[in-house]
Amino acid sequence: MSIIGTKAAAEINNKVVILAAGEGKRLRTKKKNETKAQIKVYGLSLIQRAILSAKKAGLSNFIVVVGYKKEILVSHLKKLSKIHDLNIEIVENPQWEKGNGTSVYACHDLIKGNFFILMCDHLFDPSILTELSKNNLPENGAILAIDKNIDKVFDLGDATKVQDQDGSIIRIGKNLKSFNAVDTGIFFCTPTIFAALENAFRERKHSLSDGIARIINLDKMKAYDIGNKFWLDIDTEKSLKYAKRALLSQLNKISEDGFISRFVNRPISKRISVMLSYFPISPNIITIISFVTGLMAAFMFIKGNYFFTLFAGLLVQLSSIIDGCDGEIARLKFQGTPFGAWFDTILDRYVDTAISIGIGYSFWLTHPGVLSWIGCILALVGFILTSYLKKEYFRRYFEEMPKSFIRTLTKRDTRLFVIFMGAIINKPYWALISIGIISHIGIGWSFLEIYFRKNHSGRM
Amino acid sequence: MSIIGTKAAAEINNKVVILAAGEGKRLRTKKKNETKAQIKVYGLSLIQRAILSAKKAGLSNFIVVVGYKKEILVSHLKKLSKIHDLNIEIVENPQWEKGNGTSVYACHDLIKGNFFILMCDHLFDPSILTELSKNNLPENGAILAIDKNIDKVFDLGDATKVQDQDGSIIRIGKNLKSFNAVDTGIFFCTPTIFAALENAFRERKHSLSDGIARIINLDKMKAYDIGNKFWLDIDTEKSLKYAKRALLSQLNKISEDGFISRFVNRPISKRISVMLSYFPISPNIITIISFVTGLMAAFMFIKGNYFFTLFAGLLVQLSSIIDGCDGEIARLKFQGTPFGAWFDTILDRYVDTAISIGIGYSFWLTHPGVLSWIGCILALVGFILTSYLKKEYFRRYFEEMPKSFIRTLTKRDTRLFVIFMGAIINKPYWALISIGIISHIGIGWSFLEIYFRKNHSGRM
Repeated sequence: MSIIGTKAAAEINNKVVILAAGEGKRLRTKKKNETKAQIKVYGLSLIQRAILSAKKAGLSNFIVVVGYKKEILVSHLKKLSKIHDLNIEIVENPQWEKGNGTSVYACHDLIKGNFFILMCDHLFDPSILTELSKNNLPENGAILAIDKNIDKVFDLGDATKVQDQDGSIIRIGKNLKSFNAVDTGIFFCTPTIFAALENAFRERKHSLSDGIARIINLDKMKAYDIGNKFWLDIDTEKSLKYAKRALLSQLNKISEDGFISRFVNRPISKRISVMLSYFPISPNIITIISFVTGLMAAFMFIKGNYFFTLFAGLLVQLSSIIDGCDGEIARLKFQGTPFGAWFDTILDRYVDTAISIGIGYSFWLTHPGVLSWIGCILALVGFILTSYLKKEYFRRYFEEMPKSFIRTLTKRDTRLFVIFMGAIINKPYWALISIGIISHIGIGWSFLEIYFRKNHSGRM
Repeated sequence: MSIIGTKAAAEINNKVVILAAGEGKRLRTKKKNETKAQIKVYGLSLIQRAILSAKKAGLSNFIVVVGYKKEILVSHLKKLSKIHDLNIEIVENPQWEKGNGTSVYACHDLIKGNFFILMCDHLFDPSILTELSKNNLPENGAILAIDKNIDKVFDLGDATKVQDQDGSIIRIGKNLKSFNAVDTGIFFCTPTIFAALENAFRERKHSLSDGIARIINLDKMKAYDIGNKFWLDIDTEKSLKYAKRALLSQLNKISEDGFISRFVNRPISKRISVMLSYFPISPNIITIISFVTGLMAAFMFIKGNYFFTLFAGLLVQLSSIIDGCDGEIARLKFQGTPFGAWFDTILDRYVDTAISIGIGYSFWLTHPGVLSWIGCILALVGFILTSYLKKEYFRRYFEEMPKSFIRTLTKRDTRLFVIFMGAIINKPYWALISIGIISHIGIGWSFLEIYFRKNHSGRM
């Protein structure tokens, strides 16, 4: 229930300063009327990703500092503010060329309390912000999120290095000789940073790191180690490509995906999702497309001849693949909602129903006994209850059901794949019955497993 | 998720002292070889109820102080310790006749940390203990759970009164002239109480209230107001009868019960549960009895003639009634488990399946078209998904689905009652179809309702 962590940050409701004034020379956009912050990754601009990541962590008050090509960026930000219903204040920093410290300083009139600083061109896991905000800010100090997996940092040469000692930062800079972590560009600060920057400016030092160095001197600069959480500084064409690959690889739901999902469906659905990501198609629309595809498959099965059965089987598998896309798009584009997940799950059960009826009907035409229908009904009930079992388990135990081989076998990805295979060999009914039997065995097995595992609390 | 509150108390894991040394003159047990603490209410002795209530609040280390007829009580406690797998230390108080303060004092060698004091003859809502333990104990002080609903207290004349002022107790005694609350007999204490009792003993005062009065003098006695939570001191034959009625009335699950449950099933199932409570029948066994009754109904429907159909209808309604008993017994006898609730829910869906198939089959015999089966399948899917919808909602939103009239109409109690009615008029299939249609309308309605209510997060 990571939602609880999310709330923590939301309650604090600190402001978020996003630095977007720089030119980004190393990664020029191809379009003339676009800044680096506007470069799109899977349908969302870099700054949009920074904003939506912070929003997902429960934050909603944004200040974006602009400088280079400011009119263009401001009009983009106004659009984002409208689309996402967010409060975005815009601060102009005419001195942006001096260094990014001047951009932070430009906000000093707008900020009273503690606040976050983000870079417009960094991708990051929203949970970094929620975790960061749980740390106690040192009085008149700041905390920097650092990454200690130095060997995994992309383009280490260009990164800002830090030396951390027992949770405190003792050195920071691009050219440190000895260091044990890298600056992720995610800060949680008290307003002290403005005084620190003023001090740095007096010595003609204008980068944010120069301000941070002053806080280090006062022994008030703490570090928060992000562990294995994802972040990436997009500075070059190469890192942009790497970012796309990284986001894509995060789409596999390792904890939930069955075998077929993982090795057959995901590789295809991810490609489809990438294509779809550039169009304004919402996850719920994709849910409906998958639903309609499934219903079409059911109708095809009714026809009964091999050509239609084969086509129906293909549609079943296609529906199964598209069923992965809604979640992928939702995660790629920050469009996930509880409603979407709930809606998707219920429609899946209707598709299961339609496919079972289609297959059962066509079998009954050639085998008009009552058993044709009873087999079909029992298989269908097995499918639905396999899923129902897990939902009810969550409601009773407040945790997801433990994994087991048989439950992996009876997941929807496998089930639809078996029906697809059954259609290929023109035996969809027997495929349905087989997977139905396995489903009921899985349910019985689950009873025994949970009963004996939770022995003390589950006595008969 | 009251489970979280329960954990709070469990982590503290304080000892629980239960006072069971007194004679209980006003409520003599009819059996010679039994103390007052052993009087049974719905199959559990009074002291067993005190222990299990504390256990439900997460506490597991018990000290029971015995005196009057101690051998008899000790052998009962040994049995309880074995049955419930609990650690029960027994302390003998030879001076029990002097007053209940001597019983508390008798434990002083066994107690190092903070502890609870309970009376063996009080019934109480376990959440009183969890809430009480969340209060900060004053250093060298104690907290008493008090009830401010004075006019609702049973047998006020005999109760110990207290005067509370801003969360502190300033007076305690049976004969207070002015008071604004009643002592529930549930204490949370630091070991200071032993010194306070010693002081009282020196003045030849031997009741627990006398010790508490010393803590009041030091201004260290806090009050925790239990609000509307249930508690009852069982002192007389009359209060024992009242207790039985009170426990019974708590069995209605007001928040969950549908109309039929509330006005038809509960009044009957509660009577059955009361009878069953005196036998060692576990809730899971009752779940299985309800399941088998439902399966029998399904087989009866297959026969098709009116006599069997009517009988099947009666069995359906009986199964629905018995389905209430497992939960009632679980709550009456502290036998509720997540496994039991989970198991019950899944078996209910199998009964729904069997009944639908039975009715569908018998209808198909006289109406051998494909639509007979498709109607039956769609109705069944409507039944299962009506329930599935709610479980999945909980998993996605981390809260129960809001109530609505149509969802109340499609609950299982109503559904089975409609089928029962359908059987009476010899039209079970049409009853099935009607309630099936309403179920699907309910599902569609739920989509719209949640989509528009959660408008911002649920955009298409």
